[in-house]
Amino acid sequence: MPTDADARRPRLTPAIADVRRAVRGSFSGLADASLVLVALSGGADSLALAAATAFEAPRAGLRAGAVIVDHGLQESSAEVAARAGEQARGLGLDPVVVTRVSVEQGSPAGPEAAARAARYAALQAAASDHHAAAVLLAHTLDDQAETVLLGLARGSGAGSLQGMAAEAGLYRRPLLGIRRAATRAFCADSRLTPWDDPHNLDLSYARVRVRERVLPVLESELGPGVAEALARTAEQLREDNDAFQQMIDEVIEDIVEHVEAGIGIAVSALEANPPALRGRIVRFVAQSEFGVALTRVHVQAVLRLVTDWRGQQPLDLPGFTAAREGRLLVLRSTR
Amino acid sequence: MPTDADARRPRLTPAIADVRRAVRGSFSGLADASLVLVALSGGADSLALAAATAFEAPRAGLRAGAVIVDHGLQESSAEVAARAGEQARGLGLDPVVVTRVSVEQGSPAGPEAAARAARYAALQAAASDHHAAAVLLAHTLDDQAETVLLGLARGSGAGSLQGMAAEAGLYRRPLLGIRRAATRAFCADSRLTPWDDPHNLDLSYARVRVRERVLPVLESELGPGVAEALARTAEQLREDNDAFQQMIDEVIEDIVEHVEAGIGIAVSALEANPPALRGRIVRFVAQSEFGVALTRVHVQAVLRLVTDWRGQQPLDLPGFTAAREGRLLVLRSTR
Repeated sequence: MPTDADARRPRLTPAIADVRRAVRGSFSGLADASLVLVALSGGADSLALAAATAFEAPRAGLRAGAVIVDHGLQESSAEVAARAGEQARGLGLDPVVVTRVSVEQGSPAGPEAAARAARYAALQAAASDHHAAAVLLAHTLDDQAETVLLGLARGSGAGSLQGMAAEAGLYRRPLLGIRRAATRAFCADSRLTPWDDPHNLDLSYARVRVRERVLPVLESELGPGVAEALARTAEQLREDNDAFQQMIDEVIEDIVEHVEAGIGIAVSALEANPPALRGRIVRFVAQSEFGVALTRVHVQAVLRLVTDWRGQQPLDLPGFTAAREGRLLVLRSTR
Repeated sequence: MPTDADARRPRLTPAIADVRRAVRGSFSGLADASLVLVALSGGADSLALAAATAFEAPRAGLRAGAVIVDHGLQESSAEVAARAGEQARGLGLDPVVVTRVSVEQGSPAGPEAAARAARYAALQAAASDHHAAAVLLAHTLDDQAETVLLGLARGSGAGSLQGMAAEAGLYRRPLLGIRRAATRAFCADSRLTPWDDPHNLDLSYARVRVRERVLPVLESELGPGVAEALARTAEQLREDNDAFQQMIDEVIEDIVEHVEAGIGIAVSALEANPPALRGRIVRFVAQSEFGVALTRVHVQAVLRLVTDWRGQQPLDLPGFTAAREGRLLVLRSTR
């Protein structure tokens, strides 16, 4: 049993050591004395991240603060946010920003996406206000595995399976290699009491069903280590996507040209590339020109204008048309 | 209810139409009058494939036969094989080859892999004896989805998720886009009685657990269409892998050189490529030179000799060592 002395000065348990090491490893490239902000919900993952950051940042010559976003979606949300703010200050984080957002109701992308958009906008604003060099997000290996499984259910290949990036712009995710159980252990070992978000048990969310019902079945039927395997998969598929994107970035200027009311892609360039790259070029142009995320079926239909050209009619796709015009594949907006 | 007239001349039901169309689509590129052999177990998948091939092959100017491999692993296996042979002859297939193999007991790769090796050797031999142009395998969309999930549990990225190829050398898999339920419906609609392999219900096989326990949970929790999504994922990841392999094939001769008792890879070439390709080059060389399938962790350790060179000691890996020697990454067999 812990003694009072333990309570005052937590032992360096395996969970605390692992989380701290992961946080330390995420600081690379940050300028001396710059500020890192932890996105804190008060849950076990972000509370452990906040505590480890409060410990590690000063030792790495950095300052550490916290941002708590109150989504205003639950009755007690202001109270939860205030309590997380107190915990952050108790850990020595400074500044501690508590910011209330209003989540767009009835958003066409759904309530989860609307809450996410509001949250990231608030994090971005707080980082900007306080000149933060990085915002640390507490997504764990379990979150990554869940993301891969949710992507699998959509089935659009490496793009949907690559999960979350360890580093993306302002954001860093130090805990992607840490199991959720370790953040709970960190909190218990540190005498920190995390908040349990009731949403985390609400089975109307696909992510909660993956966590509570799908992953446990995968682990029991295929053996432990499935979550780690999913996270490794995400990491490699992200590398694959990055490689393809780098190849596209290198050639795109040379293979597209603006044509009347649209954009043309050189058929010869598409033909010269393997199908994986061909499809990604079309997808990239559709996304960057028209903001349209093409499905695999649509990409394949467009590519038949290149690889199986028999004088077909132009294709009517969501947001644009695709037509073969001589040596060009021409995409034109219909909006 | 079916009438006697129906029984004599099966109606063209959706299942029969779908399976026949898939089989027809798999004949592309086969020379006139050449022979295709269906690998027949007597189960619903291969029985439907055999019946559809018997119908479609003559209409496409091809000859159609069957190979039945008796693995000799179950008491009744000779009887099952003989019955499948009769069904094949009843469908008008010719030749019908029934071949008994002996499966290596106590193989280090496990009993499933040993049975598979014996089966493919027998199919290869039958194709060779009868100068067949192709061997048709009855793997369905469900088999493909199961393969992806089994690969996920291993977690080695696109390589383990890409599932089975629709065409690989002699082998073609016409039914990769067809649900298993459709092959059962085909048999019922055609008054064909498939054999139910008791192995298909033996939960000591990981594949059976995936089929009976994992996929149903995925479908109920994430919605129907998960099997199709997994199959689409496999298809796209296979394209990705093919693209990377094509890139490797184009450069490999220029970037490796034989050195004393080993093979060297130019460090500059590895550095110039994105991580995804870098890792695949190392994996490709290890596989082709030493027959070693490297894990992601090992690949990353080898690459640190390139991207994080600080004068480290050579690495001792299963089957070979990896050392940095000047401008080369040198791999040497230890077997």
